[in-house]
Amino acid sequence: MKKYLAEMIGTMVLVLMGCGVAVSLNCSSNCADVANAGTVIGTALAFGLSVVAMAYTIGGISGCHINPAITLGVFLSGRMSAKDCGMYMVFQVIGAFLGASILYLLVSSAGVEFAQAGAALGSNNLQDGVSVAGGLIAEIVFTCVFVLVVLGATSKTNGATNNFAGLAIGLSLVLVHLVCIRYTGTSVNPARSIGPAFLAQCAGGPVSALSNLWIFIVGPFVGGALASVIWRVIEPAKADE
Amino acid sequence: MKKYLAEMIGTMVLVLMGCGVAVSLNCSSNCADVANAGTVIGTALAFGLSVVAMAYTIGGISGCHINPAITLGVFLSGRMSAKDCGMYMVFQVIGAFLGASILYLLVSSAGVEFAQAGAALGSNNLQDGVSVAGGLIAEIVFTCVFVLVVLGATSKTNGATNNFAGLAIGLSLVLVHLVCIRYTGTSVNPARSIGPAFLAQCAGGPVSALSNLWIFIVGPFVGGALASVIWRVIEPAKADE
Amino acid sequence: MKKYLAEMIGTMVLVLMGCGVAVSLNCSSNCADVANAGTVIGTALAFGLSVVAMAYTIGGISGCHINPAITLGVFLSGRMSAKDCGMYMVFQVIGAFLGASILYLLVSSAGVEFAQAGAALGSNNLQDGVSVAGGLIAEIVFTCVFVLVVLGATSKTNGATNNFAGLAIGLSLVLVHLVCIRYTGTSVNPARSIGPAFLAQCAGGPVSALSNLWIFIVGPFVGGALASVIWRVIEPAKADE
Amino acid sequence: MKKYLAEMIGTMVLVLMGCGVAVSLNCSSNCADVANAGTVIGTALAFGLSVVAMAYTIGGISGCHINPAITLGVFLSGRMSAKDCGMYMVFQVIGAFLGASILYLLVSSAGVEFAQAGAALGSNNLQDGVSVAGGLIAEIVFTCVFVLVVLGATSKTNGATNNFAGLAIGLSLVLVHLVCIRYTGTSVNPARSIGPAFLAQCAGGPVSALSNLWIFIVGPFVGGALASVIWRVIEPAKADE
Repeated sequence: MKKYLAEMIGTMVLVLMGCGVAVSLNCSSNCADVANAGTVIGTALAFGLSVVAMAYTIGGISGCHINPAITLGVFLSGRMSAKDCGMYMVFQVIGAFLGASILYLLVSSAGVEFAQAGAALGSNNLQDGVSVAGGLIAEIVFTCVFVLVVLGATSKTNGATNNFAGLAIGLSLVLVHLVCIRYTGTSVNPARSIGPAFLAQCAGGPVSALSNLWIFIVGPFVGGALASVIWRVIEPAKADE
Repeated sequence: MKKYLAEMIGTMVLVLMGCGVAVSLNCSSNCADVANAGTVIGTALAFGLSVVAMAYTIGGISGCHINPAITLGVFLSGRMSAKDCGMYMVFQVIGAFLGASILYLLVSSAGVEFAQAGAALGSNNLQDGVSVAGGLIAEIVFTCVFVLVVLGATSKTNGATNNFAGLAIGLSLVLVHLVCIRYTGTSVNPARSIGPAFLAQCAGGPVSALSNLWIFIVGPFVGGALASVIWRVIEPAKADE
Repeated sequence: MKKYLAEMIGTMVLVLMGCGVAVSLNCSSNCADVANAGTVIGTALAFGLSVVAMAYTIGGISGCHINPAITLGVFLSGRMSAKDCGMYMVFQVIGAFLGASILYLLVSSAGVEFAQAGAALGSNNLQDGVSVAGGLIAEIVFTCVFVLVVLGATSKTNGATNNFAGLAIGLSLVLVHLVCIRYTGTSVNPARSIGPAFLAQCAGGPVSALSNLWIFIVGPFVGGALASVIWRVIEPAKADE
Repeated sequence: MKKYLAEMIGTMVLVLMGCGVAVSLNCSSNCADVANAGTVIGTALAFGLSVVAMAYTIGGISGCHINPAITLGVFLSGRMSAKDCGMYMVFQVIGAFLGASILYLLVSSAGVEFAQAGAALGSNNLQDGVSVAGGLIAEIVFTCVFVLVVLGATSKTNGATNNFAGLAIGLSLVLVHLVCIRYTGTSVNPARSIGPAFLAQCAGGPVSALSNLWIFIVGPFVGGALASVIWRVIEPAKADE
């Protein structure tokens, strides 16, 4: 049970801090104005450092997935049971709702003008000029890269890793956000998208955050499954050279 | 005695460097202008890297709390004596005064125009449009996240951590500043707020830095206590699965 | 065979993510406008964190060179066979084509306006005011520094490194990009330049990306060879003091 | 002999890369314009990551001081001989001249307009509105903090450090630059100041870079000596609790 609670708390922190910084820094994916680069870098750091923070806090309890796409990839790699896989995902989504709720409370209590700025609560959506196909490709490709790092860095046959996994995975999430905020705001994590999409409705956010939500569930799951296939190909066998 | 002195020096460095960068980069929490993001990122890095620096300098001497909210959380988790808890806090506050004093000396000796820019000396305060309730919620929530990372990353039952704790905790403080500067400038540390609030009066800073000081004492202490409760729930027992 | 595939996938990720962020952040080497600094920092982080991510993913499989200049330096230091040296380079170039192709697909499917912004696909070229000699010197000097770090950090006689190599090498690549984007966009890696230079032609990029390509093959190879000479001079002998 | 050469190469890399990024990003200490924050952050990262890179490259050969103020602090702490202390400093200064020369060559060969921008070659100087006293205090205080981290993180009695020292010390140098660029451009390292100050004269830089050079020799040496005194006070004795 403790590991399910740990996943819930970890995902709560990820959504609260990651989406919270997107609101605080007024993160903008508009690359025409280079001055926006700072808001993207700060938000990318926030999501990545949330993973670093949680990895060294709950890593020893649950493995710190805090992302259903990672849980799917780990399950498909035969490293966890179907029951744990399902329970992890349920508690991750609950955690995401909790995190988005706390952020909503915080933004609301900080005055009207403020609530306006944070209306979308860091929810994912297709950015200006990005088609559904483009958003889906982005989520599949970048989730695949991210989950590949997770599977590799935590592999028992990969001797060069150990305690570095938490840091390497967190920094990979920084990387993924740097490139992907431009397309979708970056989900690569269905739970992280589900929580804020619903809460944003309470805050007067755009309805499209909800109607496009399927992209941020299907994309990451396909990407995570793809990563488990790629890792199976290059994973060193015990009797390998 | 050495550990108390170490806490004093560590807190002195934290205040001197963290608040010092806030002054040097002219840190602004105004998120309407995205160009301010760089000043927030630089200041967030400064507080976090101060903790990293001190963790690997005095970590072996005192554990490098340099924050009364952490000391409270550690005490409530039953990892230190009441006497040490009190002494740590006293020396942390002394260190914060020393750090703010050196910063005041530096800013003063750098010319009048300069002193103007750094008048608030990086002291904490409610930012534009943030209510007392909003500021208090922000300090409670973000201190809770921060102290939870401290308790988890230094837990003896959490095997995956060891020497990474200093890095993980410091990066968590970067994260906390990225989100919270927007609300209160980010305290999550009563000592860090007390020193600059008093010294800022000498430099002609706003009186509200002093009258709102209670928020940055009550908030972090409540958050730290809350974190020790949460950690107690998810902490793996020795006989746990 | 698995190690060749690993090099291919690693180089693919490096090009996709590094060049992808250069496109997403609209990276500009024009230093007259200080507001461009954010786009340079974000792009530098992207290339460096790609190496960190891949080092802890495929490091245990192939050593994670993902750069022909590194492979040359390692070969000249007598740490790998000629056959492996050649095969590594072939698969690295294939991976770079794959990465640039995925990026092209992504940019294309994101709408016309978008494709315009990313037309050069992060390909290397001489920046405004930089002569061929200047670009060549930059690539030689900075590849030399980079490969020197690789050889030192992975040296078996250098006791102080171990698992830190991946992090140290990745952060060194951040450093190299911070200084060198101003001159050439930063190659220090022939494969990383070859892929985007060809794919950029499909996207309507400048022909000079192709005609200047030799600079980004000759420069890094000379720099890598130079690094192996320098390392030979300072490398501690086993019987050394 | 190898360790002296290693110190020379390490200091060469530090000056080439650190000052090189200051030139490439057009680093500005003018805090009135918050848009300059990015140039300060990038330059701070450059100096710090140069230390990280070299620490894991030559750390096993010479200990990677690459800074006469560190060498003084280590000598005063009784951890090295007087002969080594002197030789280290000589080779560090030679390395700094080499690094500044390569940077001068690079900037020169990149066209006239370019050479103009980099005329000061990243040399240290008192920034606008900063008095001699202010500059001297800044260099003493921040060198003291920096060398204190070096002495603590590499102390044999401080069990919590080991291989993390290189990373912690490098990140501390990032921190020191974030706060101190505003006052003096940040030396905290006499060798780093001597090389560029002389080479900048060839590039038409300001004469004051040379006439103020004493500040960047006296300040860091006083700060380094002060750090060794502080460390002696808090250093845990072997028989200490």
